[in-house]
This record gives sequence, structure tokens and C-alpha cells, in this order.
Amino acid sequence: MADQIILLAHGAGGMKSAELLQDVFLPEFGNSTLAQLGDAAVIEHPGGKVAFTTDSFVIDPIEFPGGNIGKLAICGTVNDLAAAGATPLAISAAFILEEGLPYDVLRRIVAAMARTAEMAGVPIVTGDTKVVPRGSADKIFINTTGIGSLPTDRPLPAPDRATPGDAIILSGTIADHGMAIMTSREGLVFPSAIESDCAPLAQMVAAVMAAVPDIHCMRDPTRGGLAAVLNELAGQSKVGMEVVDADIPVNADVRVACELLGIDPLHVANEGKMVLIVPAESADAALAALQSHPLGKNASIIGQVTDKPVGRVHLRTALGSLRILDIPAGDILPRIC
Amino acid sequence: MADQIILLAHGAGGMKSAELLQDVFLPEFGNSTLAQLGDAAVIEHPGGKVAFTTDSFVIDPIEFPGGNIGKLAICGTVNDLAAAGATPLAISAAFILEEGLPYDVLRRIVAAMARTAEMAGVPIVTGDTKVVPRGSADKIFINTTGIGSLPTDRPLPAPDRATPGDAIILSGTIADHGMAIMTSREGLVFPSAIESDCAPLAQMVAAVMAAVPDIHCMRDPTRGGLAAVLNELAGQSKVGMEVVDADIPVNADVRVACELLGIDPLHVANEGKMVLIVPAESADAALAALQSHPLGKNASIIGQVTDKPVGRVHLRTALGSLRILDIPAGDILPRIC
Repeated sequence: MADQIILLAHGAGGMKSAELLQDVFLPEFGNSTLAQLGDAAVIEHPGGKVAFTTDSFVIDPIEFPGGNIGKLAICGTVNDLAAAGATPLAISAAFILEEGLPYDVLRRIVAAMARTAEMAGVPIVTGDTKVVPRGSADKIFINTTGIGSLPTDRPLPAPDRATPGDAIILSGTIADHGMAIMTSREGLVFPSAIESDCAPLAQMVAAVMAAVPDIHCMRDPTRGGLAAVLNELAGQSKVGMEVVDADIPVNADVRVACELLGIDPLHVANEGKMVLIVPAESADAALAALQSHPLGKNASIIGQVTDKPVGRVHLRTALGSLRILDIPAGDILPRIC
Repeated sequence: MADQIILLAHGAGGMKSAELLQDVFLPEFGNSTLAQLGDAAVIEHPGGKVAFTTDSFVIDPIEFPGGNIGKLAICGTVNDLAAAGATPLAISAAFILEEGLPYDVLRRIVAAMARTAEMAGVPIVTGDTKVVPRGSADKIFINTTGIGSLPTDRPLPAPDRATPGDAIILSGTIADHGMAIMTSREGLVFPSAIESDCAPLAQMVAAVMAAVPDIHCMRDPTRGGLAAVLNELAGQSKVGMEVVDADIPVNADVRVACELLGIDPLHVANEGKMVLIVPAESADAALAALQSHPLGKNASIIGQVTDKPVGRVHLRTALGSLRILDIPAGDILPRIC
């Protein structure tokens, strides 16, 4: 243990990340709020409940088809608040800049943040800027932290509320973000460029919350992809899940790129999608609400929650057989967000 | 403009930092909350008011006499909340780790964060960890963002509330943090090691707030030091200030180190001090409350607010003459916090 070092996999959202959390962070920071490990913490204070979430963005490249690190940072935090069932109230933005970063690049990134925040209806209210010497960081890292107000008159989605019989709904195609980054890094060219799905989902989620009184779980499938989210929810809810591969939407170019690179699209990061788990009787209403929003037009019911095997996710393949859908073991794509 | 690049001075808290803010961030993010430029934003929501503040820490070295980057990160955010008059409710912690960071170093940093948060009475409730390849960051960067509850039954301190006649109070010695970092970087050895003053001030500030019904301004003098804070408050309040050099406490070793390195202690960063501006009639009560707390035992009234010259700070020297106290022009000490 004494000669252990941090590996890329410790930040990849898979098993090594979980180890680091269990081994270093939880024992020291342990408290009931942190231990829930939602994408956002719920803070009770005398005036009500607020959701609170943080993310640092270290993506490479910093500009990519469909967005840049600034747009990504706002989307990531807005979507974590939305997944908690919160209405975004305010976002902070903290920049670590490498000396020598062109001013124009920073301007484009900041402009994208402003546009995206406006689209999501949330102000950027406080910030911080640090500059480190050349070679001490890679161009630009951004932290965004968000607070949102939580409704007090309805049950909130939580990772331990999936119940056998619930429907599992996905708001659109998967793997676009991760494959946009991967193909732009590798210099692969496809008939049409693969674009990141990077988008703020607050308004789409608000439409579903208006239509469905009790959403059991919501989670945006970022690092580790759909597979990681489903496994986490199955584990925390102590249920099984069965999803149907043919019902999971994947864009054709993305599927080809995944096959070429030997990557399972279910393990790839998304930045503009939401996984929702709702009671079976609310499934049609949730789907209709999603499909009524431009960002949810490809929404699909992809499976259901089962009573067993507890903590496991089964995937029904095109051939009709069932296979276990595992979480990504190692280090799929470093610096994907 | 097109070939401009980011310089170290853009992150040093002086004039270049102000330029970047005016030139890039405010035009894009501009909103009334951000434009107030306090250390913490005040968010109104249906249930009440919360303060919201963010900082990224990129200090070099990451372990130093009197603390490490983890302790520093918690202190910085706790102190920004305290300066806003808020009671810290919750802190988020986001880590950017360089591949290869020893696990043991991370453990020490995380342990210091936990201890410091406990001392300040605030839980760490949510977090994020990213790992970047060797050479893409320098060991570890930490972002801490905090929310605090604000009292609604009393006026809040604000940077534009200094009023002629007010007393200017400093909670203890200055320049300890910056000189601890500087001397440990330069390998200078003094009879007794200079230690950072890094400390969470929430409880000390709570004692003053209990004793003084209306604190006009509070600010912790970090980057840019006491000189930067006084100039900012004078500028935003549209008042002058006169402070007495002989009344500003500086530890003897720190003074020697500053002289050796040709640095003005008034320009050096602190991480465990507070500047308070209070009505003259509350000055003695504020001083007594500060001195009753271990972290405020060296508190001192260092000057007063004047009606002119507007936006300027005068320093009365040991010889009795007045000189203008300017803000640091360039890049004093990069990566000091």
C-alpha cells in the first residue's frame, strides 16, 4: 500500500474510482450526505432543501465537434442538478489556466459557457481564476459547481428507489459524446462527423417532472456510460435490471466507430442524456413528455427493473440471449470530460 | 488582441486579474450577482438567502510548514463564507490528480481536509475526482466550493459599505502564509521556521457577529494581501482609508524574510486572517470579540475610513509621513494558493 500511486483508472469512473472513494475519501469525509453518493448532495437548511453538485472538467481536446470544455462544464453541472430533481439556481465557475493559453480560445470557451447557461436558465454568479506556469497544467481545466432548489411537495428521485416492475427509460442515443472525443483524438474521419451530444437537460427534465408525480431514479450517464449508471442504480436499490439491446438508440456512425475501435457503446460517456426509472404506470407519460422536447425526441423505454439478481444488470441481445452487463473495468477513455 | 496569451499575472489577483475579469468574464457572464464581485455570491431563493463561493487551489509546494493544499482549500472556502457573514452549511471537494501522485500524499491531504472541515463545523458533502496523465497537471489541484446560510435579520457585510469614520480592524499578523511558501520554495532557513497562518475563521467571525450588530465589510486578505483588500474596499465603497504601518502586526521572522526577498508584507497572501470594517462605536466590541478567540488574539485596529481621496489607501509610515498604498502591480508569487 505504501508505494501505491494514482493511476489514470482512478479517475475513469469505473472500479478503481470506486476503490479510491471507499479507501480514501469516504473514511475521512464520511457523513450521511456524502455516503449517499448521488450526483448531487441534498442540503437541508432552515429555509428549505437545496441540491449541491461539483465537477471538474479536464477534457482533451478542449474544443471538439459539438462543443468545447466550457459548454461541457455547464451541461455537466446543470444535468447533475436536473438528475437530482432540482431546478438550477446558480453556478460557480473556477478556471485553472496554463500560462500561454491564447486569449481567443479562452474567449470562445467563456462565450460557450454563457450561451449554455442562458439556455439552461441559470446564472453564473461567482468564480475564480488561477494561472499556472507552462507545463503545470494542460491548457485549461474548469470546475463548475451548482446549487438548485428542490421541491418539497413530492418524493425526490434517489439512486436507491428503483423498484421491481419500474420502467427504465433513456432520453436518446448513447455514446455520441465519447465517440466524438475519441474519433477527433484519433483523427478518424466518418462520412458525417460524430458530434458530442453535450446539452443542458434542465428544461427537458422539468417537462417530465410536470408529467410524472414520482420519478424513482434519474441519472445522467457520463463517465462509464449507460452500463455504469444501470449497475450503480441496481446496486444501490438492491434490485436487478433487464434491458433490451435493440431498444437502446445508437447513431449509425457512432456504432461503426465503436466497432472499429472495439469499444462497447454502453460503456461510453454521454453529456446530454438522462436515464429515468419510473413506475410502470407512468412510463407512457414520461416517454411522451421526453419526446415532446427536442432533446428527448429519440427517447425510448429500454427495459425494466426486476427483483433479481440483486445488483446485476442483464442485457437481452439481438439473438435473444441474456448476458451480464458489467461496469467498465479499467480506464476506457481518460479525459473524456 | 488576437495574439494575446494568458500570463501568470492574469491569475495573481492584481491588475492583470482585474483586466481579465473586466475584459472576458464579466461581459459574457454579466449579471447583477456576479458583478458585485464579493468573495461569495448571495443567492436568494424561496426559502431564504444562501452564500455561494468557489476557489481552485494550485499551490506549490503542496505540503508546507503549517499545512498542505487540502487544509488550505477548506480554510479558503470557509473563510470566504465567513467573510460574507454566512454560517458554512456544506462544502464540495473536486480533485484533479496527476497520474503517479503517491497514494500516501493524497491520504495526508484528504485527512487534513477532513480535520479542518471538522474544526470549522462544516461537512464535505459532494465531490469529484479526475486523473490526468503525467505532465498534464502538477501533482494535485483542488477546488472547494461552499454554501452558507445568511442571516435575514441583520444587514450583511458588503464591499461597498465602508463609511467615513469606520474603524479598520485586522485579526492578526500578516504575510505568514505567503512567506512560508516563499521561503520553503527558496530553501531559506530562519531560526524558527515560518509557518502558514492557514486556519478556518468561521467561529472567530461568529464571535464578532454576536458582539457587533452591523459589520460593514469583511474580507480575507489572500492573493494581493492586505493592500489589495483595502484598495478593493476603498474603490467599491468610494471612500479613502488611512492605515498606520506601526499598528499592522507582522511576525519578526516574516519581516526579516520580506526584507531579504524585497517583498512588501502588505502585498503578501494570508490564509487565516480577516479584515473587518465596523462603525467607530463598535470598534472596541469587535476587537474584544476577536481577541477572545485564539485565532484573533493579535487583532489590532489598524486605521480608519476617510471621506477622501476616494478609492485610495494611505499608509502612515513609522516616520509619520503618508504614502499611497498601491495594489500589487504584477505577479507577486504565483501558485501561492
